[in-house]
Order: sequence, then structure tokens, then C-alpha cells
Amino acid sequence: MANIAAVLHGANDLRVESIPLPEIKENEVLLSMRSVGICGSDLKYWMYGKCGKFTLEKPMIMGHEGSGKVVKLGAGVKNLKIGDRVAIEPGVPCGECRLCKTGRYNLCQSIFFCATPPDDGNLCRFYKHSAEFCFRLPDHVTDDEGAMLEPLAVAVYSCRKGNVGLGTRLLICGAGPVGILTMLVAKQNGATTIVITDVDDTRLALAKSLGADHTIKVMTNDPSKLATEILDTIGDFPDVTIECSGTNFGFSTGIYANSPGGSLVMVGRVPGGEEFPLNLAFTREIDIRGLFRYANCYPTALDLVSKGLINVKSLITHRFTLQETLKAFETAASRDSKAVKVIIQCGKN
Amino acid sequence: MANIAAVLHGANDLRVESIPLPEIKENEVLLSMRSVGICGSDLKYWMYGKCGKFTLEKPMIMGHEGSGKVVKLGAGVKNLKIGDRVAIEPGVPCGECRLCKTGRYNLCQSIFFCATPPDDGNLCRFYKHSAEFCFRLPDHVTDDEGAMLEPLAVAVYSCRKGNVGLGTRLLICGAGPVGILTMLVAKQNGATTIVITDVDDTRLALAKSLGADHTIKVMTNDPSKLATEILDTIGDFPDVTIECSGTNFGFSTGIYANSPGGSLVMVGRVPGGEEFPLNLAFTREIDIRGLFRYANCYPTALDLVSKGLINVKSLITHRFTLQETLKAFETAASRDSKAVKVIIQCGKN
Amino acid sequence: MANIAAVLHGANDLRVESIPLPEIKENEVLLSMRSVGICGSDLKYWMYGKCGKFTLEKPMIMGHEGSGKVVKLGAGVKNLKIGDRVAIEPGVPCGECRLCKTGRYNLCQSIFFCATPPDDGNLCRFYKHSAEFCFRLPDHVTDDEGAMLEPLAVAVYSCRKGNVGLGTRLLICGAGPVGILTMLVAKQNGATTIVITDVDDTRLALAKSLGADHTIKVMTNDPSKLATEILDTIGDFPDVTIECSGTNFGFSTGIYANSPGGSLVMVGRVPGGEEFPLNLAFTREIDIRGLFRYANCYPTALDLVSKGLINVKSLITHRFTLQETLKAFETAASRDSKAVKVIIQCGKN
Amino acid sequence: MANIAAVLHGANDLRVESIPLPEIKENEVLLSMRSVGICGSDLKYWMYGKCGKFTLEKPMIMGHEGSGKVVKLGAGVKNLKIGDRVAIEPGVPCGECRLCKTGRYNLCQSIFFCATPPDDGNLCRFYKHSAEFCFRLPDHVTDDEGAMLEPLAVAVYSCRKGNVGLGTRLLICGAGPVGILTMLVAKQNGATTIVITDVDDTRLALAKSLGADHTIKVMTNDPSKLATEILDTIGDFPDVTIECSGTNFGFSTGIYANSPGGSLVMVGRVPGGEEFPLNLAFTREIDIRGLFRYANCYPTALDLVSKGLINVKSLITHRFTLQETLKAFETAASRDSKAVKVIIQCGKN
Repeated sequence: MANIAAVLHGANDLRVESIPLPEIKENEVLLSMRSVGICGSDLKYWMYGKCGKFTLEKPMIMGHEGSGKVVKLGAGVKNLKIGDRVAIEPGVPCGECRLCKTGRYNLCQSIFFCATPPDDGNLCRFYKHSAEFCFRLPDHVTDDEGAMLEPLAVAVYSCRKGNVGLGTRLLICGAGPVGILTMLVAKQNGATTIVITDVDDTRLALAKSLGADHTIKVMTNDPSKLATEILDTIGDFPDVTIECSGTNFGFSTGIYANSPGGSLVMVGRVPGGEEFPLNLAFTREIDIRGLFRYANCYPTALDLVSKGLINVKSLITHRFTLQETLKAFETAASRDSKAVKVIIQCGKN
Repeated sequence: MANIAAVLHGANDLRVESIPLPEIKENEVLLSMRSVGICGSDLKYWMYGKCGKFTLEKPMIMGHEGSGKVVKLGAGVKNLKIGDRVAIEPGVPCGECRLCKTGRYNLCQSIFFCATPPDDGNLCRFYKHSAEFCFRLPDHVTDDEGAMLEPLAVAVYSCRKGNVGLGTRLLICGAGPVGILTMLVAKQNGATTIVITDVDDTRLALAKSLGADHTIKVMTNDPSKLATEILDTIGDFPDVTIECSGTNFGFSTGIYANSPGGSLVMVGRVPGGEEFPLNLAFTREIDIRGLFRYANCYPTALDLVSKGLINVKSLITHRFTLQETLKAFETAASRDSKAVKVIIQCGKN
Repeated sequence: MANIAAVLHGANDLRVESIPLPEIKENEVLLSMRSVGICGSDLKYWMYGKCGKFTLEKPMIMGHEGSGKVVKLGAGVKNLKIGDRVAIEPGVPCGECRLCKTGRYNLCQSIFFCATPPDDGNLCRFYKHSAEFCFRLPDHVTDDEGAMLEPLAVAVYSCRKGNVGLGTRLLICGAGPVGILTMLVAKQNGATTIVITDVDDTRLALAKSLGADHTIKVMTNDPSKLATEILDTIGDFPDVTIECSGTNFGFSTGIYANSPGGSLVMVGRVPGGEEFPLNLAFTREIDIRGLFRYANCYPTALDLVSKGLINVKSLITHRFTLQETLKAFETAASRDSKAVKVIIQCGKN
Repeated sequence: MANIAAVLHGANDLRVESIPLPEIKENEVLLSMRSVGICGSDLKYWMYGKCGKFTLEKPMIMGHEGSGKVVKLGAGVKNLKIGDRVAIEPGVPCGECRLCKTGRYNLCQSIFFCATPPDDGNLCRFYKHSAEFCFRLPDHVTDDEGAMLEPLAVAVYSCRKGNVGLGTRLLICGAGPVGILTMLVAKQNGATTIVITDVDDTRLALAKSLGADHTIKVMTNDPSKLATEILDTIGDFPDVTIECSGTNFGFSTGIYANSPGGSLVMVGRVPGGEEFPLNLAFTREIDIRGLFRYANCYPTALDLVSKGLINVKSLITHRFTLQETLKAFETAASRDSKAVKVIIQCGKN
């Protein structure tokens, strides 16, 4: 069993190369990797060698949206057996700190997380992982769907953070993969009015075809004007805004548009460099809630896919082999490709 | 404008007779009544002269699941205009007590509530109501649907009380109108596994046809056995149980079947006279939450119907005129009729 | 019964002058005003003719922290009688909108609020108010204490918003009246470690004498340095930060200092004009929760004072008569006066 | 290092005898036991060989309210060092199941818990425990106080479960150790009115001396009468009831006395055999919340003791050596002894 991996050696230096086969501990499993998705943070590491507060300081295996097949079991593993196909929750927390014990393990200060420096990811042939963070896929759920549970878990968490529920009027800023998955989850969660904004017609068309009640193309650079347009479109203020565009504009739009007493969930981060209408948010008691990855969302994400309630396959536009990883990254980064979600099939040659 | 009403004079003494036209106050509207549904509590008053802690002490107009058309406006009414068709939220709280001010107005100790002694209901030709508790129906929502918002509001509230959400495994005891509406609401709210139990095949068949994942016919009088059957059927404990059968058996089943840390919502009441496994509920931290009517649920119920997300019409099996009220009650009370929801159309002759 | 009031005619134009005696409605009471406190927003209106988004557009009676004595009752008033001394909750919401019905009446878009343009306040001899927003003072609670319930209600609300509870480690930025009241409330609410920061030694000394576990004088203009100092002082991150200083520095300090997963409650507003470490707040899931006045806090504030659990009198440094209002405002605005809370006794000559 | 333990061999068969020295694993510590308290469940095992659903099926070491001193460290232990004195949280959950991952580890179905069959306790000379469930005691916190954290954790959890907070009116049924500790915690947590009931004058006197606002001696066997007496005493309904008496009467009293919309926390269990006013609880929306041990309460309990906010020593009435364990149990079980909390000092000869 030779192992190869897509290793990032520095900005713009992504290489597919041999790596050792991992040794597993008592509570771990060895996985033959199947599908691994590429997300925005992967592209940032590749292009800039960093993402947010994390900086690449030594070569790192990419990949954190993955599914695999169990090929070896640690002695203490009880929840899995050889041959099981699993979705891999990429964060493994310490389990002992205050945040872990209270169920907020995504905030654990010593969590391992795939493809976040200095932790290696799973864009490789063989990968080991804690068994309790592997979720067995039923036969009818595909490897690609297993990989898609990762961004879907973000969407589940964003709805939970925003208290989306029955009758929620929801604004989603940004119709990229996470924005669209958030829309799909919110619809399952009881949101009755969903408006989604973007600058890109193709993305809005996809959002519309997948069930957005309203799509608005952003044509102004004044977020208060867009807020007025949203209000005119749905006839009321949204109760909740989930910002998935990663722009200053999206954040400000959420503050201007959202109903008093509602919440503004920040999936994206703000580039900054300009003034935000923060006092308006404070005065209207719009809670601003950031989101860091997710906790306890994989079982729900899997349930939604397994029951056929959310079709994550509709977002997959391209597939590549592990050897073609560089091409996969180029495709994911290219506007021209019209890529939404790019998947690398690690088991294919 | 002569007025007539279905007035209950005592147990088994329901008469359609003339009553005066109501005078409206500044914040009230006069309504020409359209559809009024009959529910289980109506039947109890009719058959026994009482329901729960409430006893009929003087003649009372029946009806609390109603829709009407605005024919006259109080001077201070701003949210409605003549000709608007509305759903009538039947409870009008004081607005001033601690419970009202904190948003729990259903628990207001001086609430007016239609057809609950000593307050008159709206099973009549002309009825007045507080404008702020009338909800304008869009053109495409029918009078019957407007009347159905009342039991639907109970279902919305029961899901809210139980924290039904994404991925909830839900047990519903009882496939009567409220049980089925609860199922429909729970599906919209993210529940991914719903099992519903009843003794009646017809009701279970209806539940199945409307989307229940699993229906179980109750064939035992041992609730712990039914709990085992539920566990076997869905492969796990339900997170939440909503008891809608009004039986001791349903309550005990919820305790035996529910997951530790979950909640058991009591829409029904228990006849009592036997021991319940209360200590098991305490030890498993299954919260037992009673439900009294609803608060802030009409807007959500209307939204769900208006957006076409819940089809309440599927529950309506019989329609009668106001003059036929007695026949309507007899039909609703009869097992043979296979009645689910009986509607009285007050505007028809 | 002649009436006089302190009327603000424009920036720096505050006059004590005759006004008509108010007419009361059915649910209102006429009050002979007793004590009225001056707060920061009063000073802003006086100095600049505006405060936040509100601008003075016509003469306005000042005063919103008041107590009074009932001298006349509307026909429908049941909770009060002539001679009752009351604390006046200065906001009277519509009672009918979605926000009122769900218990968040402070966010009601058509609320009346004393001394917020265009609504008149109660810094006058006779004032009328909705009876349901007047809270009867027991004999042993003084008029001054009744007036102090208003800022105390802000403090109660800020602790509630921040989920202060048993064992909370709390950072309070700003040791002005609201900061100190927040500290007193937080101690009653279970906070076990409270650190309070300010630039002013006198205020910090007062905070210390009233029970702050730690006081830190702000000597740096780098909020991350202050955060490190806080961490060193209490040996851990605070769970909750309540920003009461109304400075950019306080907001940034809260973000740098607060524990992941905690909350940052914005009682103050930010002047802006600089960059904030927002992405850090998002990444750490520090909820940023603005606060607008309060809802359902007067009963609790009164209870705390009445039971002797919070000594609000310790904050009162100066008292003036209604005729001396201008001098009272000058004193409140002066750094040299060492004023903490200035009270105007409307019943004194 | 010879080891001895108090081993229960069957009902009324408690022996102090030699046991082997435990072997520690990587994440465990070996403790030289100091103080161990006796609680009601210990007495039940001793007297009847069972407690609730748990039955003694083989000899079991008693003791779950303990403190100890670290004498040996597993290789992976980082949070402790040799010589640290610690309070021992007696439950060690699996850390991997759904309930553990969501912070409700007390409900873990495979939790180890001291002195709950078949798990051995720590009433012995040397005992091993998971390091992450040992909490280091500061120098000024005594061994006895460390042992008392266990019942104090129950009290912390009961207040958390009941949402006790600022201004809560609280009824506590039963003035035994947990009832009194609950009172002390509730006072720290903002409860402004606490009434506590019991049949025993001595216990009520202790409660009064430790700060109960009102004590009521139960002189009736009609819980609705006691509810009326409570209402008369505090002038309003309690918002929250915490039942600590373990009687049918206490449960019914809570239902009759509690405010609509409040909660009734069941620390005790009900013997049953009679009818409860359950429908009243449902109709008033009084949430009935059982409590099973506690989760995430030790740090708070320690903080409260360490800061001097709760004096747990006031409850300790008797102390014995490990050799005197039988006498200690007899004292704890005797009404005549007036024992409140009996402590066994395992390090004393």
C-alpha cells in the first residue's frame, strides 16, 4: 500500500508526492480516501500560503472535505468495521477542556483540524483519523456526498447559530457553495422566505433553480440601498441574515436589512478597511454571531442527505483524480470554469 | 343584519338561535363569520357541559376555530379594512400582566378566549373581535384554511415547545387532527424521522399518505412494549415526543420511548387513575412540557399555509351550514363518520 | 396645580418654564414628580441637540429617570391608587406589534419614550404616564431610589443579555454609573470574578469600594495589551464582556480579552473612525450583542433595591431642585465636580 | 502502601477491608483519599442494597463525594502534579457519544460513576481517577470543602436547570443538605425570595440561619393547602420550584404552588402510589425537569467555595475515620443524631 498526497510546499507550490503510510492508534482507523472537495480556504492556502490567522510554515497535505473507506481498525474501535465507507469530520478536539466538555468542541484551543497549519489534511491515498469522528455512510449515499457533508455541516451550523426556524424570513448574502447549501438547509428547517444576493448571474440562477424564493443581483455599492431593495422584495425585514460572501458589503447589508431583534450570522469574514454601521446593529439589537467551523453537525448533515432531503450532488460541477490535483485547484479558482464544487476522487487513477 | 348563533345551554342542549348584534369598541372589528371548525374541546362541552377545569355555567356561544370578513371597523383600527377576510386568533389577553409583557400571553390569567366558559365563541353570523388578533388572509387562502389556522397554531406551538428542528427524530402519539398537523409542521421544521402511533387504521393511513415516515398501530396495553417497537422501527430513541392522544398510555409511551435529555410535549391531557413512570422521566432528564393553547403562532401558521407548505385542506372531511350545527357536532363525534375535521360555513344557508 | 418643566429648546438652551397640566386617559395616571436623575444621553441632547440617531426638532421636556406620586387616576386603572409612590418605566410600547407580542417591547418601532425626540420627558412638576408602566414603591424605598431604577434596569438587562450567571468571569469596560450598576447586578447574579477598567482613578476607587474584584486603570492605547493585562490579572479569559465606556477602545478590548464562545454586550456605542478586530470576534464566536434600553427589567430592579441587595444610593453625589436644573446639568457634565449621579428633586423648592 | 476500603457486600453488610492498590492508566492519577461525604443514596444502598434503578449485585466500594491528594501521575497527565489536593468529580463519561459531544455527559449511557453498581467508589485509602475529572483545590480550600463540592454541584445544576436568576422567587421543598445547598446557590444566583419547606424544625432553623427568606413547617397533608400558605407568605407564586424532599407531597406542592410558565426541577424522586395533579402542571405550562447528577458544575462549585461565597462547612455536623465507617453510616441514618452532613476522613487513623 504505497501512499501519495497533494502537498502544499508554499504559495503556488502544490505537489503530488509520496508520503509514508500512517500508523494508527487504538482509537483510530486507517482510511483509503475516496472523494475530497476543494473549498475556498484551500485555494487561499494555495495562492497565498495563508488563510485568516493561519500561515503555512512547513509542507502540509491539503484536503479537509473528505470521505474514505475503512481498511484498518485500531484495537479500541467499536463503531466501525473494515469496509465501511465513512464521511470524515476533519476536526478532532482534545475532549477534555472546558469548551469540549460543554459541547462547543469546535472552539477547542488544541483541536486537530485537517489542512490547517500545522495539521495535515486528507487529500491523499491513505489517511488515519479518530474513529469517533468518522460517520458511516449508508449504501445509497455516495462517496461524493460523503465529502459534501463538510460544507453541509457549515450550513447546518449557520442555521442553528441564526435560530432559523418555522416561518423565518432569511437573507443570505452570497450564492457560493456555502450560501446555496445554507439555503437548502434553511428551507428544510422551516424558513418560509429566503432571499439570496450575489454579483454573479450564474450563481443566482443556480440558487433560483434550487429553490430560492427571491434572488437579487447586487448592482449597487451602497448596502443601505440593497437593504431597501430586499425590504421591497419580501415586504418585510428578514429575521435573520447569514453572511456567506466574505465581503464588507455583505456584512453592512445584513445590518441595514435585518429586523430589530434578529441575528446576523457571519460565515464569511470581512476584509475590513472601511466603516461598518455597527451602532445601528447595536441599537436594533441585531446579534452579530461569528461562526467557526461547526460542532455536532455531521450527524444532522448525513441525515439530511441520507433521507434525500438535500441534494448536495447538484453543486458538484467537476471531478478530477488525485494526480490531477493541480488542475483541480486551477479549475476551482477560475471564474471561467463556472465551477461550483470541485471534487477529487482519490481512489481513481 | 340579524344575528344567529349556535348556543350551548347545557350538556346535550345545543341550539341555533337569535342573538343581538355585537357593539364594537375602538380597537375592534365586526366580522361576518365564514368558516368555523369543530374540535375535541367543543365536543366535550357539548357532551358533558365541561372540559378540563372549565365548566359551563350559563349559555355559551360555541366556536373558536374561525375565519370571517370585516364588515365594520372600530375608530382606532389601522391594520384592517372593510372587506378583508381574516383568521381569528381566539384568545385576547390583557396585554398588561407580567406574562403578557414577556411574550407568554397564552398564560395570561385574564385572557378572553372564544367558547371557553364564560366567554362566547364565534359560531354565529356576526361576531366582534380585537383587530390585533385578526390576521388578514391573502386572496388565495380560503375561508376554510383560515379556520384551520387555529389547530395549526397548536401544532406550530407544540413543535416550538419541543424544540423540533433539523434532524429531530420525533414520536407523535395520536393521529387525530392535531397529531397530523403536528406531523406536517414538524416535517417543515426539519424533523427527519417521524413515527406516529394510533389505534385507528384510517387515521394511520391518512398520516402515512400525508408523509409520516412510520406509522405504528397500537396493539398492546403495555407502553414499554410499544416503546421497544418504536425503537426497533426507527433504530434509535426519538429526541422528542409530542403526545396528542390525550391518553395515559400516550404519556407513558413518551417516557419509555424518548431519548435521555429530550422533551415530551403534552398537547393532550391524561385521564389519570394509574401510575406513570415519572422517575424514569426524571432520571433520563426528559423534560415534560405542557402546552396551553399557543402564543405568537398565527403569523407562522398563516405563512405556512399561504406559501403552500402545509395543506390543511386535506384534513377537512365534512362541511355543514350554521343551521346544521347539531348535525355537524353529531358527525364530528361519530366514529362511523370517519370525520377528521368538520367545518361549519356560517355564511352559507 | 401649576406645572413647570425643564424644557430643552436647542443645544445649550435649557429653560425652566410653565407648561400645561396634562390630561389623562383611561389607563393613565397623573403623577406629582419626585426625583429625576440626569444621564449621559440627557447631557448629549443638552450639549449637541442630538444623541445617536435622535435629533431635537422642537422644544422637549427633559427627564426619563423618574419617580413620582399618584395624584389622579384614569377610570380604568386598577394597579395603583392615589398617594402611591411609583418608579416610572419611561418607555410605553404599542403592545400590538410582533415585537411587543413576543416580549421584546423595547424594540417596538412606535414606542413612546420619555425625553427622546419628539417625546417629552418627566423633568417637571406634573406628568402623566401609562399606569401599567408605573411600579409602586414600598414605603422603605425612597424617591431617589425609584429614580435610580432606570439606570439599574439597564444594568439588569445588560447582565441578562450577556447570560451572566453562576461563576461568570466578567469584564466591564467603563466605571461610570452604568458600569458600576452593572457590576453590582452581576455580583448578585452569580459572577464570581469581576474586573472593571477605566481611565479615571476616582471611578475605579468607587468601583473597588463597592465590590469590584479587580480594577484596572487604562494606561495604554493598545487594546490587545490591556487584554493581556486582564488575562494576567484574573488568570483566565473573561466569559462575558459588558462594554459601558462608549469608546472604540472598550469595544476592541472586549474582543481581544473575551473567551471564545462568550459574549460581548454593547451598552455603549462606538464613535468609530478606526478599524475593529471583528474577524477575531467572528473566529472566536464571541457574540456581539447590542442593547437598546431594556424590557421587563423594572420589576427585577425594584426587587433588588427593595430587598436591600443593591445600594443605588451610593452612586448619588449631588441633588438639586427643579429650578436649579441648569446647574444640575452643569454639575453632571463637569469632570471637576466628581459627580457620579445627579438627582433633581422635583417636589422641592 | 496498603489499601483499605469500605465495601458494601449486601444490604446491612458494610465492611472495612483490604483491597488491592489500583493500577493507573495514561490519563489517570492515583489519589490518597482525604475526605468523603455520605449522602442519601449511600444510605439506601447500605440499607436496601439498591437505590432507584440500580441494584447491588456484587461487593462495591462506597463513596462518591470525595477529595484526595495526588500521589502518582499517569504519563499523559498535564493538568495536575504530585501533591496537588483535588476534588473528585465522580462521573467519568465515555466522551464519544452524542450526549457527551453535546455537553450533556451526565446522561452518557456508559458513564463510570463512583459507588453506583457495578462501579466502585472512593471511600478507601487509595483510589485512581481520570485526571480530567479531578479539580485542583487552592491552598485555602480544605479537604472537607473539596468533598462537599459534590452535593454543591447538584445544587448548582438544579439552579441552572430551573433557570434561577435575577429576581427569581424560588420554592425549595426539603431542607436537607441538597435543599440547603440549593438555597445557598440560588441566593448567589440572584434569587430574591426563597421559601423552603420541611417537616423538621431543626432543618428549618438551619435553613433560616443560613439565609432563607421564609421557612414553612409542613403541617398539612394537602399540598394545595401548603401552596396557598406559600402564596400567602411571599405574596405571589414562586417562579421556580426545586423539589429536594423526595416525596410525593413535595412534587404535588410544586405543581400547586408554582407560577404558570415556570419550572419544577425534580432533584428528588417520587415514591408514587398516588395521583399527582399533572394536568394542572400541563395547563399552566409548568415545565417538569428531572435532574440526573450534573454536568460541568464542579468548576462553578469550586469557584463559589474558593471565593468564600458559599460556606459549605456550615453543613458538616460529624466527622469519622475510615475505620469508623459503619458508625458514620449509622449516624447519618439516625434522626436522633441531628446529622446534616457526615464526613469520613480517609487519611486519619
